[in-house]
Amino acid sequence: MSIIQPSILPGMMELLPEDQVEFNKMKEIIEDTFKKYAFFPMDNPVMEKMEILNAKGGGETQKQIYEFTKGSTEIGLRFDLTVPLARYVAMNFSDLNFPFRRYHIGKSYRGERNQRGRYREFYQCDIDIIGHDNLSLYNDAEIPMVMAEIFESLKLDNYIFHYNNRTMLNGFFESLGIEDTVFALRTIDKILKIGEENVKKEFIENGISEEKVNKILEFITFKGDNNETLQYLKSLDISNEVFLKGLEELEFVYEEMLRFGIKEEHITIDLSITRGLDYYTGTVIETFLKGYESIGSVCSGGRYEDLASNYTKQKLPGIGLSIGLTRLYYQLKEADLINFEVKPAVEALVIPMKGMENYAVDLLNKLRKHDIIVQAYLESGKMKKKFNYADKLNIPYVIVIGEDELKEEKYSLRDMKTGEQKLVGIDYLIENL
Amino acid sequence: MSIIQPSILPGMMELLPEDQVEFNKMKEIIEDTFKKYAFFPMDNPVMEKMEILNAKGGGETQKQIYEFTKGSTEIGLRFDLTVPLARYVAMNFSDLNFPFRRYHIGKSYRGERNQRGRYREFYQCDIDIIGHDNLSLYNDAEIPMVMAEIFESLKLDNYIFHYNNRTMLNGFFESLGIEDTVFALRTIDKILKIGEENVKKEFIENGISEEKVNKILEFITFKGDNNETLQYLKSLDISNEVFLKGLEELEFVYEEMLRFGIKEEHITIDLSITRGLDYYTGTVIETFLKGYESIGSVCSGGRYEDLASNYTKQKLPGIGLSIGLTRLYYQLKEADLINFEVKPAVEALVIPMKGMENYAVDLLNKLRKHDIIVQAYLESGKMKKKFNYADKLNIPYVIVIGEDELKEEKYSLRDMKTGEQKLVGIDYLIENL
Repeated sequence: MSIIQPSILPGMMELLPEDQVEFNKMKEIIEDTFKKYAFFPMDNPVMEKMEILNAKGGGETQKQIYEFTKGSTEIGLRFDLTVPLARYVAMNFSDLNFPFRRYHIGKSYRGERNQRGRYREFYQCDIDIIGHDNLSLYNDAEIPMVMAEIFESLKLDNYIFHYNNRTMLNGFFESLGIEDTVFALRTIDKILKIGEENVKKEFIENGISEEKVNKILEFITFKGDNNETLQYLKSLDISNEVFLKGLEELEFVYEEMLRFGIKEEHITIDLSITRGLDYYTGTVIETFLKGYESIGSVCSGGRYEDLASNYTKQKLPGIGLSIGLTRLYYQLKEADLINFEVKPAVEALVIPMKGMENYAVDLLNKLRKHDIIVQAYLESGKMKKKFNYADKLNIPYVIVIGEDELKEEKYSLRDMKTGEQKLVGIDYLIENL
Repeated sequence: MSIIQPSILPGMMELLPEDQVEFNKMKEIIEDTFKKYAFFPMDNPVMEKMEILNAKGGGETQKQIYEFTKGSTEIGLRFDLTVPLARYVAMNFSDLNFPFRRYHIGKSYRGERNQRGRYREFYQCDIDIIGHDNLSLYNDAEIPMVMAEIFESLKLDNYIFHYNNRTMLNGFFESLGIEDTVFALRTIDKILKIGEENVKKEFIENGISEEKVNKILEFITFKGDNNETLQYLKSLDISNEVFLKGLEELEFVYEEMLRFGIKEEHITIDLSITRGLDYYTGTVIETFLKGYESIGSVCSGGRYEDLASNYTKQKLPGIGLSIGLTRLYYQLKEADLINFEVKPAVEALVIPMKGMENYAVDLLNKLRKHDIIVQAYLESGKMKKKFNYADKLNIPYVIVIGEDELKEEKYSLRDMKTGEQKLVGIDYLIENL
């Protein structure tokens, strides 16, 4: 039979077992925290009708959709978890209760240009709270608290929420007489990529006077601690009502974030954060790891006034944040930032001498009754090979069963790290594994 | 803006939040048990190169592949978890340690004809143990024990492993002078669908004498308890070596299954089980729920001599079993067999009176420190609406915070089932929620 060279598609993450254990531990921490904060799980199909995915229309992401036809149906793989959420909430509106809190950890697909650290299949971990007609601002403060707890559990204590308010930004532009606020926001959004000078140029080329551009740049590059920033914003003495509403929201949500338990040093009011995409309205957040800013934002999102306007006439405001898990795992690995504890997948390997196999099975049963994760090596082969196996799988203990051990109803327990070996009874194993 | 009617593709399972909690509980029980039995996680891409999926060629399943082209690459969505496992083991052979024990809970895709209870996107929960060159028969007995523990945890105490051995069947056919054993196995496999008479007809049409066909039918329809069946098999006095090897395996694995802790009443040696697919060699298993046989097998698999012969020259024998979770959930729901306990997703809802919101946040923080799953209702609205919300979400307790409560540093705790309400302190909440 001819052999087909085994390979996978480019841009896919596939891990060896030990790394997969690590990855899954991250996923588990995220999911457990989402559950703890009273979010309901969602798990919808990876495939959607193209008409659903195209509803919003345009955009770079739309071009990256994996699209195909089966029978006469045009099908696409989802490119994020937000479009399916919007479709789901619109479709099941009368069966849902609002505020609707859901988490979703699932794979999305984008046919991006192949690039190191960019994946075409990737896990997103999203939480959103969707209201009907209204949604209180307390939710804007609670959502980042969930993510803060996740970062703490991941031992990433250098996370900083860069936090801003789009309503306030819109009001600021209005106060300068700039009507195309979407253009202004998109231009500012590029500042990290193209630099201050180029942002300035782009504004001027679009007919904004140099005086105004300087005011904008002064505004978005303001540096200070959070209280200084709040003072600065008030000192601008802008009377535009949209600006004042946004500022009030910004301050309220900031105070509530502190109340929910996010420490001040993990929040920076950052007036340059806009989240380019035009559907955000109030709160916007990006999250950076201090000292590793080049990684980019590791958790982003914000408030949108109307989640599902493409699919329903119901007004559904929401707030959400998302972690791109596949990319984050890759980056933490690269930056050597995996500091959370990962327990060994197997706690002990039982190795029976020839003819002792059935006693090994009996021992597995006894230990498993106490939820100890054990495995027996029941293949034939040399002792050395079997110990090697334990070593390679990072199994911390080996239990040998031989005839001598059997007579005394004892087991030889070997600590694979220290090499120490001792004869112990079943009770010792149950207590110490 | 024009509204696009929200809908999903046919043949997709999508659940409302309460059902999703139930579904996820099943998934969690399965995953926790897989881990407990020392299997490593796997999570590979849903997309594979078509050349990988086509390697085996032919077959009904191949026709159902969701297939598309991106650039010049032909891509398909996996139709099971076995082909990706084979490709993965072949590709990472030198980095893996054998026996390689892996579990995989993931989605697969088949463009099947649309039918009630049949899904085009479905979760499979697979465990396999892959050896290099050899794999001991103990593994054939341990794998069903993992599934037995899962069925026990799912409170499905009516599961029966229908267990057989393909080597023995092949030897039996050989002893009758039937060379095309694949044809014979496939024909037998249809007995439940088309009935004894039609199976008989098919054999005779293919040139098997009536005498032999009667022997075959007597064999595969033999009924008795396991010891009677073993006695019957020995009493046939067949001297064919393949038959005898298979019988020896069958008996050994049966005894070891008992030793691993599967109770005798959960095993039936069933000589009609063949698992039609031709890659199985020794052990074959299908699992039925007694009294609900029409559901079909809820957990199937067996031993294969060579997992990855399409992708590598290494000989990789294995044994595996698989649960089709999406279909199983649907069927258990339909048959009203969801008997495992599902804890409420949210343990208590905090409802502050107007102006008391910040105290609600403080209370959330205190309770969450003790891993109690709580949520606050911080939207404006009538009290009745808020209690209704708790009711609809099946939240068992509501905690009301009003000015009176605040003065006394107490909370009104209402049991939503009994309607009983009492004033309690924080310590009471922490202890009793």
